[in-house]
Amino acid sequence: MEDVKLLTCNEKIRAIHDTMDVLSGKWKVSIIACLCYKGMRYSELMRQVPGISGKMLSRELKDLEMNKLIERTVAHTKPVCVHYKITPYGASLKELTEVIATWGLKHRELITH
Amino acid sequence: MEDVKLLTCNEKIRAIHDTMDVLSGKWKVSIIACLCYKGMRYSELMRQVPGISGKMLSRELKDLEMNKLIERTVAHTKPVCVHYKITPYGASLKELTEVIATWGLKHRELITH
Repeated sequence: MEDVKLLTCNEKIRAIHDTMDVLSGKWKVSIIACLCYKGMRYSELMRQVPGISGKMLSRELKDLEMNKLIERTVAHTKPVCVHYKITPYGASLKELTEVIATWGLKHRELITH
Repeated sequence: MEDVKLLTCNEKIRAIHDTMDVLSGKWKVSIIACLCYKGMRYSELMRQVPGISGKMLSRELKDLEMNKLIERTVAHTKPVCVHYKITPYGASLKELTEVIATWGLKHRELITH
């Protein structure tokens, strides 16, 4: 695979668009980051990702499942329990979530001091 | 500053949201990546970021300028020439654009083979 530092601007933008298409919207990076910690139920994800609506969470989870970044399992308990966990492919995004979080920490420190 | 690997899930999601608020939408990461290569005129950015509309590019550039990630200079030539370049603060996002591009390269390789 090519070294990203040797890419032309156009090639780099195409690669960025490929990632941004998979991680489209404001919430997918956060959901991936949560599931990189541990598998979670739907209700847990709702608590861990402040500001997301139920409808949005369902839609984003469906997208992520379709792209094989997460796995959904249904336990036939009463009530039914739906559990989500990261796939090995989804876990390849962990570094990206950490670089994004690191920048956010520095940004918050800068604008609050 | 805290090590991102020691953050709780909540803290990490807040840090991610801080970054995603600044880089909201599909285009800002690409614009930052372009300007990390070199300063560019508006028309050059339009060519380098395929798919973006003129209206959207203007709006995203305004947001990035407001967040002090890019600088805008106007040369009083005929016609007037508007030039954009990355600020040192904007350049702190270069690593993030490279991690995003690297994942995109691998993703494209995986889904096309």
